Order: sequence, then structure tokens, then C-alpha cells
Amino acid sequence: MKLKVASKILDANDRIANENTKMLKDRGIFSINLMSSPGAGKTTLLEKTISSLSSSVGIAVIEGDVAGSDDAERIDRLNIPVVQINTGGGCHLDASMVQEALNDLPLQKVKLLFIENVGNLVCPAEFNLGEDIKVMLLSIAEGHDKPLKYPLMFQTSSALVINKIDLAPYVNADIEKIKRDALSLNPSIKIFEVSCQTGQGLDKWTDWLLTHCS
Amino acid sequence: MKLKVASKILDANDRIANENTKMLKDRGIFSINLMSSPGAGKTTLLEKTISSLSSSVGIAVIEGDVAGSDDAERIDRLNIPVVQINTGGGCHLDASMVQEALNDLPLQKVKLLFIENVGNLVCPAEFNLGEDIKVMLLSIAEGHDKPLKYPLMFQTSSALVINKIDLAPYVNADIEKIKRDALSLNPSIKIFEVSCQTGQGLDKWTDWLLTHCS
Repeated sequence: MKLKVASKILDANDRIANENTKMLKDRGIFSINLMSSPGAGKTTLLEKTISSLSSSVGIAVIEGDVAGSDDAERIDRLNIPVVQINTGGGCHLDASMVQEALNDLPLQKVKLLFIENVGNLVCPAEFNLGEDIKVMLLSIAEGHDKPLKYPLMFQTSSALVINKIDLAPYVNADIEKIKRDALSLNPSIKIFEVSCQTGQGLDKWTDWLLTHCS
Repeated sequence: MKLKVASKILDANDRIANENTKMLKDRGIFSINLMSSPGAGKTTLLEKTISSLSSSVGIAVIEGDVAGSDDAERIDRLNIPVVQINTGGGCHLDASMVQEALNDLPLQKVKLLFIENVGNLVCPAEFNLGEDIKVMLLSIAEGHDKPLKYPLMFQTSSALVINKIDLAPYVNADIEKIKRDALSLNPSIKIFEVSCQTGQGLDKWTDWLLTHCS
């Protein structure tokens, strides 16, 4: 019974996700569903990415949170079109929430859309939003056991951004194990090591993003 | 429709949670539902707590994870009764999973039961497992915006353990804001500041635990 309902919800979600995909493709917008644990640094990564790229490519952001609008306010300060979605308790974004947000965004000049999902390593990976790719962010402070504990997230992501590598000397996390386990789950996953605090590694990430924006 | 199903699931969960509560009360076992983001340090906190308390009080652990048995293996090394639950994709434990695990645990000498939930700041707060209290763990590396972004978790927890405070000098997190916002959501929440790496603050946490074990 539970399973039957879940599959109905997923079917309905996929139908709307396909509409989002078509709408974005028609406008030539490349879209990224950005996922991570709470506090891994999604919004900070977006701030750094926007500061680096917004002069060369039109960017918009959809922010997903259970509650509050802190993240959208941070993006708004960078003069980037942004819509905040509050899920009101829901642990992930779904395609209909994103569809509604897309209708509220001025997309004329946008070529790159970030959808920042709710901080959660489980459910966001199950719901397509119509995005081109999923990217996941992992804070080195979360430890090296995350790939094998949350495999779907790593399997469905095109890229893994390992953040806060400036903390590596202070935490017991084996970054090589993270990379090895992520690649064993998903041999084609692209891995970046960055620090949003120091800026280390961010150039490789933004260069890679630009290759997707025509 | 979605809401109706969810409420049915929650009703069924609460019925089984009540059975768990009665079973634990009959045995004089105090139980804690331990919740946090992925990588905040739940299992490490349990390791430290068990090392400190297991000579004076009987302890058992139920480990919840989407996949894998790493955490249960870590607890098993301390010679503590432990059962690993794999939710197989589910983003939280529910009462029936815990009921099944309780049936597998030798509880004769146990006075303190930890149920380590799936790493997730959203759904675990919605599902009672039959525990006496919920305790949440927050890594200082997750930042100071978590209380207002994930309010239910803070509202339903009897205690907040702020972990990894040894990282405070290296992260931009305002610990006073965390405490202020947590208390605004839940004025009676008990707050501990600890480092499982250095041991700082763990004595207050274990002393508090002992006051609950008769």
C-alpha cells in the first residue's frame, strides 16, 4: 500500500519533471539540481560561483528549504533572479514546486539555473525536477563513510564537490576513501575538491560549469 | 490525497510506538532517539558515551542507516548489544522497524537504549519510535543557520548536543546564535557543547544521561 502510493507520486512527479525539462531546453538553459547534507555549503558554493561567473553567463537560482528565506536573501544580494521555495516540512523539492518557481523567474537572459535542494542526503536523489544534471556537495567534516551510507545520492549525481577541504587537517576524514567509494558507486562521477573559504579548487569547478553553457 | 495517506501512516506508527514505549517502561529502560544531519558525529558520540558509562549502566544500541552496517560494527567492537536496521532507501526510522529490532536485542541488563536514527534533519523528527526523549546533535561545521531552517527537529528534541566545537576556530559559525535560536524554538531544550575528538564537555553530557537511569 505504501509502495503503491509512492510510485503514483513518483509517476506524477516525472510527468511534471518532463515538462520542466522541455521548458528549460526550449530556452537553452542548463540546469543543475544541487544536493547535500544540511550545512555542507550549498549556498556558499553558489555565492562563490555566481561571483565568478555572473559577468559571463546569465544565472538564476531556485532555493529550496523546509522553512525560512535566508538562502534566497543571500543570493538576492548578488542581484541574481532567485525564488525561495518553502516545503513546509517536506524533505525534498519536487517537480511541481520547481515548475511554479520557474513561472516566477525572469528567464530571458538566463543560461544557467541552479536549483538548491533541501539539505538531505536521502530523498532529494529520488525526485527528478527536470534538471539536466544532479550535483552533490559533501563537506569533508561529514567524514569518509558517506558514499557507502547514502549510495543513491552518489549514484545519481554527475559531479561530486568535496567542500571545506581547508578543514582536512582538523578532521579524521580520508578524502581518498571518499573518492574511491564514490567512483565505485558511479565510475563516471566527476570529482572536485574545493574550499569556499579559501577559494581553492573553485576555478576547476567554474571552468567545468562553463563547458555546459552554450 | 497525499495528506490523507501520510496521516494514516503516522497513526499506524504511533500505535506501534506506544507498544514500544510500554515494553521499554515495563523493563525500566530509558530510551533516546538520537538524530542529526549525516556526519554530525552520532556514532562517535555513542562510542565515547559507551566507553564512559558502560561500566556503570547497561547499554544497548539500535543503529539506523539507509544502507550498510559500519555503525553497528563500530558499536559491536565495544561489546554492547547492537542491531543494525537498514531502511533500504527510507529517510527515517519508524516504530515498527524499532519494534522488530527490540525483539532481537538481549535487554535483560539494559537500562539505557540509544536509537541512532538515519542522518537527516527533517523526517526523523516526525516519527515517534516510542522513545522517552529525542536528542539532536549538530556539528558546528554545519553553520549557525540550522535551527531556523529545520525548526521541527529543534522543537521536538529535549537536548541539543553541539559537537565538533574543536573546529570552532576554523569555521564561520556563531555558536551563540545557534543556542539563541534553538532556545527561541524550544525554551526548555538542554544544550551541551562537546568535542568528541578532544573529549571537551562530554562529562556534562554523560552526567545528565545518568540522571535519567534509575
